[in-house]
Amino acid sequence: MKSRVIVGIVVGVICLLVGFIGGKIMSGTCSNSTFGKGELNVNYAKYFKGNSYLKPLTTEQMGVFNVTFEPKCRNNWHIHHGGGQILLVTDGSGYYQEWGKEARKLKKGDVVNIPPETKHWHGASKDSWFTHVAIEVPSTNGSTEWLEEVSDEEYDKLK
Amino acid sequence: MKSRVIVGIVVGVICLLVGFIGGKIMSGTCSNSTFGKGELNVNYAKYFKGNSYLKPLTTEQMGVFNVTFEPKCRNNWHIHHGGGQILLVTDGSGYYQEWGKEARKLKKGDVVNIPPETKHWHGASKDSWFTHVAIEVPSTNGSTEWLEEVSDEEYDKLK
Repeated sequence: MKSRVIVGIVVGVICLLVGFIGGKIMSGTCSNSTFGKGELNVNYAKYFKGNSYLKPLTTEQMGVFNVTFEPKCRNNWHIHHGGGQILLVTDGSGYYQEWGKEARKLKKGDVVNIPPETKHWHGASKDSWFTHVAIEVPSTNGSTEWLEEVSDEEYDKLK
Repeated sequence: MKSRVIVGIVVGVICLLVGFIGGKIMSGTCSNSTFGKGELNVNYAKYFKGNSYLKPLTTEQMGVFNVTFEPKCRNNWHIHHGGGQILLVTDGSGYYQEWGKEARKLKKGDVVNIPPETKHWHGASKDSWFTHVAIEVPSTNGSTEWLEEVSDEEYDKLK
């Protein structure tokens, strides 16, 4: 008779596992990047510390790109000349910092308006992947000026 | 003794429910709109069938808006003059249709490039909420021309 109780409990535990694994799978599909990871961002690798991935969403009327950073990955300080950029954070957590200001911690749903002619960087936090859509504000003769790395010393101080 | 088996099975079923409810809660937080629902879209209600919700994400350098449609909600046929629009689907499922073409079914992660001077509509599917970011391609003297409703007859035919 005891064995039947044990069977009942085992069935219960299996059901619990199935339920939670089902839940994990459901939430797992959400934590994947909404717009896809794309390819290793080889062309801009020299301006990044760590690996980033680039998926162009459209370049037909203007440039909209999905950028994914592995944990600790960040781009160098840089300046958009002409038109700025708008970041829409879709997954993970990271930072945006303008020169001379405190870094702003970013999470899913946050929006960053980067004005032109503003020295800044963005990237992942230490323990999380980070994904944002980058909308390039159109301008005539726009360009990006890439500057120095965000040093480990600066980065490691971030909370 | 049978009662112990029943207790075991009841425990199992409760565990199953707890597991799935846990999973639902976890996935529920993901299926919420990434950028927030915002307010009932009162100003444009006359150009929509059903309720939509509008959350401006930025208007500083250009207009980027999050638009949420309740099931069956869609906007009228309309034309963007000057600059078009780019849609980034973040949640749910819906449609995009250009005049004279088949409707395109949309889901999370899809991107739509709407050229200027193109008669079209977009909205939710019958049984799902639908959310997209709308990026307004900047132009000088851009405007939107609102046209006739998407009739129930047209809409109900969609697969």
